Amino acid sequence: MQISNRALGTIASPIRKLVPYAEAAAKKGLKVYAMNVGNPDLSPPPVFWREVAKWRTGVLGYAPSTGEARAREAWSHYFKKRGLPLKPEDILITTGGSEAIFFSMAVVADPGDEIVVFEPSYSSYKSYSGILNIKLVPVTLSPDTGYHLPSQKEIEKAVSAKTRAIVVINPNNPTGAVFTKAELARVAAVAKKYNLWIIADETYRDLTFEGKKTVSMYEIPGAAPRIIMTDSVSKRMNLCGARIGCFASTNPDIIANALKLAQARLSSPTIEQLAIIPLLTGSQKYLDDIRDEYHRRRDVVFRAISHMPGVKVHKPEGAFYLIVRLPVKNAEDFVKFMLGEFSYKGSTVFVTPGEDFYSTPGRGRNEVRIAYVLKVEDLKAAMDVLARGLKAFVGRYTARHED
Amino acid sequence: MQISNRALGTIASPIRKLVPYAEAAAKKGLKVYAMNVGNPDLSPPPVFWREVAKWRTGVLGYAPSTGEARAREAWSHYFKKRGLPLKPEDILITTGGSEAIFFSMAVVADPGDEIVVFEPSYSSYKSYSGILNIKLVPVTLSPDTGYHLPSQKEIEKAVSAKTRAIVVINPNNPTGAVFTKAELARVAAVAKKYNLWIIADETYRDLTFEGKKTVSMYEIPGAAPRIIMTDSVSKRMNLCGARIGCFASTNPDIIANALKLAQARLSSPTIEQLAIIPLLTGSQKYLDDIRDEYHRRRDVVFRAISHMPGVKVHKPEGAFYLIVRLPVKNAEDFVKFMLGEFSYKGSTVFVTPGEDFYSTPGRGRNEVRIAYVLKVEDLKAAMDVLARGLKAFVGRYTARHED
Repeated sequence: MQISNRALGTIASPIRKLVPYAEAAAKKGLKVYAMNVGNPDLSPPPVFWREVAKWRTGVLGYAPSTGEARAREAWSHYFKKRGLPLKPEDILITTGGSEAIFFSMAVVADPGDEIVVFEPSYSSYKSYSGILNIKLVPVTLSPDTGYHLPSQKEIEKAVSAKTRAIVVINPNNPTGAVFTKAELARVAAVAKKYNLWIIADETYRDLTFEGKKTVSMYEIPGAAPRIIMTDSVSKRMNLCGARIGCFASTNPDIIANALKLAQARLSSPTIEQLAIIPLLTGSQKYLDDIRDEYHRRRDVVFRAISHMPGVKVHKPEGAFYLIVRLPVKNAEDFVKFMLGEFSYKGSTVFVTPGEDFYSTPGRGRNEVRIAYVLKVEDLKAAMDVLARGLKAFVGRYTARHED
Repeated sequence: MQISNRALGTIASPIRKLVPYAEAAAKKGLKVYAMNVGNPDLSPPPVFWREVAKWRTGVLGYAPSTGEARAREAWSHYFKKRGLPLKPEDILITTGGSEAIFFSMAVVADPGDEIVVFEPSYSSYKSYSGILNIKLVPVTLSPDTGYHLPSQKEIEKAVSAKTRAIVVINPNNPTGAVFTKAELARVAAVAKKYNLWIIADETYRDLTFEGKKTVSMYEIPGAAPRIIMTDSVSKRMNLCGARIGCFASTNPDIIANALKLAQARLSSPTIEQLAIIPLLTGSQKYLDDIRDEYHRRRDVVFRAISHMPGVKVHKPEGAFYLIVRLPVKNAEDFVKFMLGEFSYKGSTVFVTPGEDFYSTPGRGRNEVRIAYVLKVEDLKAAMDVLARGLKAFVGRYTARHED
């Protein structure tokens, strides 16, 4: 009996693989500030809970594999308000944005095919590349350019005869960059030139700061037929545990083929896909409040990190993450140190090692991703602990090095 | 831009692909008896809804990728009551049994590898074989032997150097066969001889008739280390729309590798995985009632079908399906006829074409799967409609044939 190479070659999620260390720290009585995972401490809009509470009895059957008709209409309504031309029949309700990522990769790429990603890139793409035997080919971004996209020529260098798609996460997880229309147009130009799909992950669409607006890939003239959009209510609506996202494309062949993947898993959760309908069709004030809250949180975290000696970081323009380069050799060792050895005033901090946000071997080893998903007061305390922990870790490493 | 061969080669679910025909029939004002999908018309235990109702406010975060600790303990409790040696750490909560099937296949087989199935077999295995580029190799069962398992030698004929696992669905979907200990021992002997995993799908464990008990693969001496179990509360607890199942193995390497697949999709729905805890740990009287109800339903459907001229059917011993061979050339045409052209007293019947429950090309083309998931009165009416529709279809075919 062997375990498949597929499974052996799939990464453990960098965001979740160190959870046992955090659990051990908590067991010792430490308060752990969890900034590893984009799992906000905020409640969803109250109307969500009112919708859930309507289910008091009765049959809980499968939803259609496409998603409930009313839910698809609600998503279409949400998209149309943002100018995106997605009709109900262009939309499949998925079990979180994760499943939409899975479908998008599976529907365009065979084993051995390539998909271009901008690194650092959300690690689930890397996980699914392992599960589906697809090769991710990275275009590396830099904090020196604010993690913005390079020239068309640079992007084209990553394209080969095996390339099937380019992934654009905008606003970006994990860098917080919000791409300009000109940048997106460069991606669309490459996709057109080489006849590629564009996997447009716009999960963080409504989380942008300082009046910046997310430009959707759908705003790029001529791009629409190549776009496969992945989306989720997890982040903007604080519904991570609901597991509802969507997969969308105006290409009926893509929908017909993705539907076969959706049929294999039968359906997404019935209660939640219906309970979010009023969130998609109703007032969007909640989103404004959430955006303002993350703006405040970003400022706290960015200011604190900027003052830590030896770090390199760029100010996020959206989403709720940042990537920071630390003055350490191995950020995973630092994360384990924070969870296993360090504490300050009875608390420690859990952040995510950066390496698996990259597909280039060795890159990101001295970086961490920080999700600023805690209340401002908690973030202030966490940043103090992080600064002290970093100083202790660097000092210890230097001391050892001098031995 | 091409669609992947993976997606093109994945079957549309035979259970769901004709849903648009049923919707069209309903739009015409027909009552459609839905016996295509195992989506019962029964309510879950009331305690499930009470648990859901406890969520009135607050944060809805991700569950751990493993599943919530309390939920894993509850599943372990449920298994232990049935004598299965599954500890909480052996269990991953999945998004329905479907996801457990997906994980079980992905964790043992690479592209081009083979998995042995007994056909007819639940079609999601065929769907996932397409998505994961795995070849299903069938051992064909027959109604003449009650769809029971053949000799060890016959099973061995399906094994090659590329075989990684044997799937055993017991009680069986779609045949309703409940395998004996001797049959399971033959599978375990083949698995041992060729060093294969056993994927034991015991979703219908608690649904057996006439005092018959499900023998778990775990009751076969020596089999335990090779077993990957897939399970679900969808059927026995009437929670299809909750999307909660589990993946279980006493092999820590299997769990560690399946966990990487689970981390890629982050988590299963939080509300539902917690809400079923009392169902797993509490009284099992609900299961007895459900079993008795399906016993009555089976008798109605089996009796009615046995009286239809030209059919071949074997009496199910468990689960809530049966496979029936019809006196038609193409059962899919018959299903479309029922939905698109036939009605009796303003109603028609939706059953599933059998072909995609087989991996041998051409097999099952004259068969349908019937899910007896409706109330007895509805089943009686549906069987009357089905008998009349079959007569009309056969008559028309014969008439045409004589032209």
